[in-house]
Amino acid sequence: MKVHIVTIGDELLIGQIVNTNVAWMGEYVTLHGGEVVGASTVGDTKDGIARYVQTGMEEADVVLLSGGLGPTKDDITKNVLAKYFDSEMAFHEDTYERLCKMFERFGRAPLPSHKEQCYMPTAAKILTNKRGTAPGMWFEKEGKVVVSMPGVPYEMKYLMEHEVMPALIKQFTMQPSVYKTIQTAGTGESVIADRISSVTDALPDNFKVAFLPNLGKVRVRLGAYGDDVEVLKKEVEARVADVVAQIPELVFGYDADSLEGVLGDVLKSKGLKLATAESCTGGYLGHRITGVSGSSAYYLGGVIAYANAVKVDKLGVPETTIEKHGAVSEEVVVEMAKGAISRYKSDIGIGISGIAGPTGGTEEKPVGTIWLAIGNNKNTITYKLQLGKDRLKNIEYIGNFALNKLRVFVLDNY
Amino acid sequence: MKVHIVTIGDELLIGQIVNTNVAWMGEYVTLHGGEVVGASTVGDTKDGIARYVQTGMEEADVVLLSGGLGPTKDDITKNVLAKYFDSEMAFHEDTYERLCKMFERFGRAPLPSHKEQCYMPTAAKILTNKRGTAPGMWFEKEGKVVVSMPGVPYEMKYLMEHEVMPALIKQFTMQPSVYKTIQTAGTGESVIADRISSVTDALPDNFKVAFLPNLGKVRVRLGAYGDDVEVLKKEVEARVADVVAQIPELVFGYDADSLEGVLGDVLKSKGLKLATAESCTGGYLGHRITGVSGSSAYYLGGVIAYANAVKVDKLGVPETTIEKHGAVSEEVVVEMAKGAISRYKSDIGIGISGIAGPTGGTEEKPVGTIWLAIGNNKNTITYKLQLGKDRLKNIEYIGNFALNKLRVFVLDNY
Repeated sequence: MKVHIVTIGDELLIGQIVNTNVAWMGEYVTLHGGEVVGASTVGDTKDGIARYVQTGMEEADVVLLSGGLGPTKDDITKNVLAKYFDSEMAFHEDTYERLCKMFERFGRAPLPSHKEQCYMPTAAKILTNKRGTAPGMWFEKEGKVVVSMPGVPYEMKYLMEHEVMPALIKQFTMQPSVYKTIQTAGTGESVIADRISSVTDALPDNFKVAFLPNLGKVRVRLGAYGDDVEVLKKEVEARVADVVAQIPELVFGYDADSLEGVLGDVLKSKGLKLATAESCTGGYLGHRITGVSGSSAYYLGGVIAYANAVKVDKLGVPETTIEKHGAVSEEVVVEMAKGAISRYKSDIGIGISGIAGPTGGTEEKPVGTIWLAIGNNKNTITYKLQLGKDRLKNIEYIGNFALNKLRVFVLDNY
Repeated sequence: MKVHIVTIGDELLIGQIVNTNVAWMGEYVTLHGGEVVGASTVGDTKDGIARYVQTGMEEADVVLLSGGLGPTKDDITKNVLAKYFDSEMAFHEDTYERLCKMFERFGRAPLPSHKEQCYMPTAAKILTNKRGTAPGMWFEKEGKVVVSMPGVPYEMKYLMEHEVMPALIKQFTMQPSVYKTIQTAGTGESVIADRISSVTDALPDNFKVAFLPNLGKVRVRLGAYGDDVEVLKKEVEARVADVVAQIPELVFGYDADSLEGVLGDVLKSKGLKLATAESCTGGYLGHRITGVSGSSAYYLGGVIAYANAVKVDKLGVPETTIEKHGAVSEEVVVEMAKGAISRYKSDIGIGISGIAGPTGGTEEKPVGTIWLAIGNNKNTITYKLQLGKDRLKNIEYIGNFALNKLRVFVLDNY
């Protein structure tokens, strides 16, 4: 079953809201064995909607529309579809009854604009929308299906789950497919592609691989289609294992795993406590760590040591070390990490200092120079990063880098 | 100038990531006087990309593509476009030089896959991408323009801002339009809509108003189109002043102003120093404050007091106060703010403690109960928030709330 998704609404094209319906519908169709071959977004214009429905019909078996069914006058999808399918309009009693009952519950009567909503194309099978006023519509033409749903996400989801997908499954043969994502951190897309090429070059034709890089993290997604989901799952698992065997030290998790979640798990499982000492990241690392519910089990807190005086007073970094080596130096981050451990009574500490940018660099230490130290009472390991000039991207990159190296430190030392 | 946007990538169609590029590009084009007539999303397939470029060319003057330009083999946009424009490929020395320099800074050499990235269609004008490896490409055919950009949002944005839009403005006639955004914080969309309705109800037909709410902030955007930009600017300014007159205490800035930037400006102008004491926000407030370049002029740093022991040891919150009132209480945040001031030698301090969720609430203090205290050596003011159960949304909301109330505190007390 090939699917094309059409989302309708001016607000999607002028950037007033981010279109989340396509991602939800795409995942839902894919998981049920359909293939989304394309998606399009069009404003509230008659010509546009008709043209995009036509495009969808040409490349797919099923066109799923969301949007343009509300009671306001910019919502014109219904009339466009009636015309497209050469259909009359007729008052749909069942829908009107449902609306009257719905409004009764709120102690109100339907407005004239709601009555207008009950005129439906006679060519359509009406899909009951228990989450809102506008019903869905199911059209068929030459073996192809066009379904129109409201744009409000929870109304669309209700119809997809309760009306549309059950009917599609009856009518079409689905191509089972299975996806698995390998979560990596520590190097770039190209290095990974290079290192796993012996596996990816030998993938059968029914496999797809995708690399999704994001500031120090790269997701590697393997997908396969075939006839039997159980067989596919095993095949994908086997190839995933082959990929992981090439880059074992880079893999921190799978699918929806996050760096901060995985770090939390390893800290918790070893019964370790962590404290942070951040300069240039200004609290971002703490924010990431505490984004995980239950992080108080392993995170004590820490110092945002933005001013040098705070590094000295609150972490015990010797003033002479700052004078001699500068605040952005290996020596200073080592002292910061030590101060986090001793002053916060933690097992593990991290110190971060750098020039986040976009200004503030020197010839010796250009913008983007970052030092990190991670240690416990026995060992300390340091890292130097040379990043770009975008302040917020640098901070996010350092956050990912630090979370990953903290994870690696725990695994190496405990 | 009519624009069609094509976003490329399997990950967009199977729902692995939400497509945010369309919204950003749509807003950016609209603000510059272009009209986005449609958008489409296609997977990493040659036929699909070519077909959607064709569809875009049919309905628009300009087709903007993002995605499918990385060095890995799932990225095929470049070859599809070369074929579409009957173009040879040739090694692009400038791009290779740029890559070599970029990698030199990281102490690495380009990989073979990067060298591959430097083969470019000779029919394209190459657009330098200072944020990543893959350059943009500008094609022309029969007066129409096709631009290809990377899918990584900040690389795409860089190219749109520095290369693409400046060139489009030279080549196409835009419908003159002027927009101005009023930045507010402190109340919700409906309250604002109500309070400014006397102004918005009387807007001429060539005006548009939009409300863009986001976690404690609401942007009110006024826009107008017409023939003369200078006249429009004056008209919009006058209406903006009318709106602001209705809600003066809610307005913190205009257009690209941020709460953290405006707070920084008022602190700097008064020569004041700030320190933070965060529990449930875990460093997020510090992160927001230090997201501003130059924040070291007024931000000293602070404590992430996640564990209660840290609140006691590092901020001097009496243990008895925590025992008696609980860590999430007015009494504790007042002591945290005082501790931030006295121990960090700052003029102003803030203490935050709450139950960020999704679990951890009690009957008396349900999830989403948050206390804040803002003070100096003379006055302390406290706030209680009752938010929802979404941890990350709560944290972001508190961040916005705290930044705004810090701004108000400075204006009221200095």
